[in-house]
Amino acid sequence: MAASAGIPKYYAISQEVVRRIRSGELAPGMRIPSENDIIRRYRVSNTTARKALADIVRSGWGLKIKGKGTIVRSRSVVRSVNRILSFTNNMVEAGYRPSTQVLERGIVRGGYAAAINGRRYAIKGPVYRIRRLRFGDETPMMMEIRFINLALCPSIAKADLEGSLYRLYEREYGLELTEVHQMLGAVMLEAGVREYFGLEEPIPGFEVNGVTFCATELILEMEQSFYRGDTYRFAVRALS
Amino acid sequence: MAASAGIPKYYAISQEVVRRIRSGELAPGMRIPSENDIIRRYRVSNTTARKALADIVRSGWGLKIKGKGTIVRSRSVVRSVNRILSFTNNMVEAGYRPSTQVLERGIVRGGYAAAINGRRYAIKGPVYRIRRLRFGDETPMMMEIRFINLALCPSIAKADLEGSLYRLYEREYGLELTEVHQMLGAVMLEAGVREYFGLEEPIPGFEVNGVTFCATELILEMEQSFYRGDTYRFAVRALS
Repeated sequence: MAASAGIPKYYAISQEVVRRIRSGELAPGMRIPSENDIIRRYRVSNTTARKALADIVRSGWGLKIKGKGTIVRSRSVVRSVNRILSFTNNMVEAGYRPSTQVLERGIVRGGYAAAINGRRYAIKGPVYRIRRLRFGDETPMMMEIRFINLALCPSIAKADLEGSLYRLYEREYGLELTEVHQMLGAVMLEAGVREYFGLEEPIPGFEVNGVTFCATELILEMEQSFYRGDTYRFAVRALS
Repeated sequence: MAASAGIPKYYAISQEVVRRIRSGELAPGMRIPSENDIIRRYRVSNTTARKALADIVRSGWGLKIKGKGTIVRSRSVVRSVNRILSFTNNMVEAGYRPSTQVLERGIVRGGYAAAINGRRYAIKGPVYRIRRLRFGDETPMMMEIRFINLALCPSIAKADLEGSLYRLYEREYGLELTEVHQMLGAVMLEAGVREYFGLEEPIPGFEVNGVTFCATELILEMEQSFYRGDTYRFAVRALS
């Protein structure tokens, strides 16, 4: 471990372990060095060792198993569907560095409509359409098409669209998201989508059709997105 | 329309329309007879016609479109993930007649464990394992494996397991479900699952791994289920 000024010790250790996981040296299912291993190897206190392990678990690389220590988690991203969460924040929580490539952007005169969970939703034209490829670290994770209500975001054509749109709506237009409805389908990813993911063989994935409100009946945007089935899981929590 | 004693008129009409949809005479996307069509054809009041149409929409066969009337909805089942809902009730709400075929049942000495959304959950052995095929009308919709905590349901081996287990837990054991955590994956359905669905070609579907609690930390059961991607959609609602 290279000692660096200003970086907490526990963080330098967790980063080194994560590097070994990324490199494949530690594969999914394998044991991550225990608290005692870390104490011995890096000559640190048990507090530091515990913090390093907690950081590895928190960033999504480790899975704690009672009586067995911590193992390397399989490299899939879990997306909670119970709260409104931008791709950007979801990636950060999962321990990935998010980035975005804008593939297409422009005005669609005719508007957009889709049936979602048995109801039809529509935004009157013109709408602003953006197609983007979204990355976690260097891996393309998701392709999305967003249809944005130009009546609510009139100057969006001039905006930088490489980051979180949710953040843009809030900061630029003072729009607070109130509700998101989505419909998840399990589909084969089409060649047109796979091409962007760098996948030659067909694989299954999620198609997400959604509508985002910024007031009870005011549609801010609609989306059609494709998530890779090999890296994505959706997390659901239902209460009685 | 055959007149039958005791059946409300609106219901007889909606059932006839549904029969025409089931038969394929009315295909997804086609217009369902309008209020005026129904008034003229069946010589009923506009209240009755409106109730018939509302019944068709409510049972999932029709989709109301502003300015275009009601169209036949594509035959997919939408499952809400925001509330705890048995397969049985979900099918009834979607307008299907649910039924169940028990494929296997028996005690597993070793218990069961799985990682769900990055946490590991386990039921200590012995657990009761049931594999079931679940139908909507005559179509196999879903295959599930349920792992039931025998400490909470000691005599389940003797129970009739052709219906809703959720209902059984409540009625037989007085257990109230408090929370469900599930992880949804998009996968290719394996030959062993497809065989039961009567599908020769591989198709994508959902794999659901879940854990059901009947108190804060008390696991009542765990599940591994496979839903057909061609008939199923999952519905998500997130609030800010």
